[in-house]
Amino acid sequence: MTKATTDEEALEAVRKRIDAIDQELLALISERARCAQRVAHIKTEASGHSVQFYRPEREASILRRIKESNPGPLDGEEVARLFREIMSACLALERPLSAAFLGPEGTFTQAAAIKHFGHAVVTKAMGAIDEIFREVESGACDFGVVPVENSTEGVVSHTLDLFMASPLMITGEVCLRIHHHLLSHAESLSAIRTVYSHQQSLAQCREWLDRNLPTAELIAVGSNAEAARLAAQEPEAAAVAGAQAAEIYGLSELAERIEDEPSNTTRFLVIGKQDSPPSGQDKTSLLLSCKNEAGGLHSLLAPMAVHGISMTRIESRPSRRGIWDYVFFVDILGHRSDPNVAHALRNLDKDALLFKVLGSYPIAVL
Amino acid sequence: MTKATTDEEALEAVRKRIDAIDQELLALISERARCAQRVAHIKTEASGHSVQFYRPEREASILRRIKESNPGPLDGEEVARLFREIMSACLALERPLSAAFLGPEGTFTQAAAIKHFGHAVVTKAMGAIDEIFREVESGACDFGVVPVENSTEGVVSHTLDLFMASPLMITGEVCLRIHHHLLSHAESLSAIRTVYSHQQSLAQCREWLDRNLPTAELIAVGSNAEAARLAAQEPEAAAVAGAQAAEIYGLSELAERIEDEPSNTTRFLVIGKQDSPPSGQDKTSLLLSCKNEAGGLHSLLAPMAVHGISMTRIESRPSRRGIWDYVFFVDILGHRSDPNVAHALRNLDKDALLFKVLGSYPIAVL
Repeated sequence: MTKATTDEEALEAVRKRIDAIDQELLALISERARCAQRVAHIKTEASGHSVQFYRPEREASILRRIKESNPGPLDGEEVARLFREIMSACLALERPLSAAFLGPEGTFTQAAAIKHFGHAVVTKAMGAIDEIFREVESGACDFGVVPVENSTEGVVSHTLDLFMASPLMITGEVCLRIHHHLLSHAESLSAIRTVYSHQQSLAQCREWLDRNLPTAELIAVGSNAEAARLAAQEPEAAAVAGAQAAEIYGLSELAERIEDEPSNTTRFLVIGKQDSPPSGQDKTSLLLSCKNEAGGLHSLLAPMAVHGISMTRIESRPSRRGIWDYVFFVDILGHRSDPNVAHALRNLDKDALLFKVLGSYPIAVL
Repeated sequence: MTKATTDEEALEAVRKRIDAIDQELLALISERARCAQRVAHIKTEASGHSVQFYRPEREASILRRIKESNPGPLDGEEVARLFREIMSACLALERPLSAAFLGPEGTFTQAAAIKHFGHAVVTKAMGAIDEIFREVESGACDFGVVPVENSTEGVVSHTLDLFMASPLMITGEVCLRIHHHLLSHAESLSAIRTVYSHQQSLAQCREWLDRNLPTAELIAVGSNAEAARLAAQEPEAAAVAGAQAAEIYGLSELAERIEDEPSNTTRFLVIGKQDSPPSGQDKTSLLLSCKNEAGGLHSLLAPMAVHGISMTRIESRPSRRGIWDYVFFVDILGHRSDPNVAHALRNLDKDALLFKVLGSYPIAVL
């Protein structure tokens, strides 16, 4: 028997095994879909009316378990992504979820919506962030996906401000890798005298800019889209911005993916009519305000330390309501139903001038 | 025992079964990935160097078998999509495939590339279709994805013309649903006097336009992007175009998804250095030219009829080479290695002034 023959036979054997695995996978995925239908049936019978079958906390804990028990060789994130799609397909059997996002089609928030809900979600493009809030408040969409910690697109403030007046809650978070490019009409780097971008994007690409454009003047502007618009008008200027801006302003990508930290991520929030039950690894977002006096914030936050609660983020925003000078958006680890969190929140509620739980939700798994 | 308790118990039992299914799925997907590694190992050992592991004909036949044996309740397309992603993840374990597409990020051709190769493909945005050809010819990308039968974006001709001079072959096709919207600065339909669009888009939305804008003047222009540009300059004009054009020209969507045929699809071709072996359900694309005389084309195509071969498409293009007046792009059903197709092609090769097989490839499954 020649080597070629044995190789061919070995390949044939592996392929046969793959075909058998595929049939088993098909049978299991189909059974999983029937189970999902059964869950929906029991819930609908019990409540007597149509109910929401989407349970973010259960999806998050399933995905975490999959990542933890993953034997390889696929990496955990890849396997979780496959399960996200399987769950999304099963859930959509009953009634596809709908999610409003910041349009048009193809934006980062649409990508975030699909990453969070899977491809079976029906996404609806909105022209502005407040429209996303209205669409969910009116019940026209089940959920909304809004950018946050994304000042490079000039919209963060807007999103957080909207929470002050909205009854909607945060029901999940999504993290997405975002790339920055150097966009210009110039033909080469040596022609660039000026670089426009949002301050945060300039900071995220600082090393690359120092190394490749040491003499260029860096000018911070309001948004990366504005930077692209300015760069399109000056032959010796460039903008640091995303690929979408290159298209809109007809600029070329002089250099791709120039961010210093390749895992540069942007965070999005999923909003809905209620937040999520505990999944075991959760975050809680709060909106609060205190008296504008020395040590006011510090003493307000003291209950957190006392109860051993980690803050993962704090951001101050000027209040538009006149009563408080500043409001703070605070993210803490834990679910608001966890005893220590619940205790700390009761103290905060007593001491703060303004106090609102924006929601407890699973920490992003993917 | 109360009804609520039994419901809760029934739910718990189904959820336990789902958890068990998920663990089985994880084990099988992981084994499938190990099988893929084993295939790669055998092939590399046998050839002594790095080889291409992507086999479009095997993927297509696996997806077709999955759709055929799918027991439900998920629909066949949904299940095939899940398997596409599983195969994509397994293949990427060895070396992720790269595909050049018509940029920027977020275009239809990127969507087509991901639909065809799954999310594990590395996509690279190109500024023009000829750059996609060059990128693949130089080996910088494994494959390219180019639009065809997509005259609404004004690019078809370009793509087909490039095949005349390129050594690349067609290795696959992708079909994508495309939506048209009515874009305008006007606040309501009643203000619209003129509608611009590419002739093909106007035709695709004819019924909607007749019903909703019976008195508006319909003006055909070179591309839907051009239509959007014109509509942006006239307060009483609208364009029929895709969502991307709304963003670029700052227009609002006065009406969404106005195409008469909701399954309106656009076709893309996958190009690479070689075409695909037979998958069992294949197409073959040809480029040919004949003498410019009465009945020339008809007699040229006679061998097809004789050998019982179906033509699915024929399109004439003016030749730029001066020798022939027209060249024809013809798609037929069957693989060029099928005996009847091979026979017909030999006859064509004898009779045609110009004859080139652009490739045999699996009919789009998804």
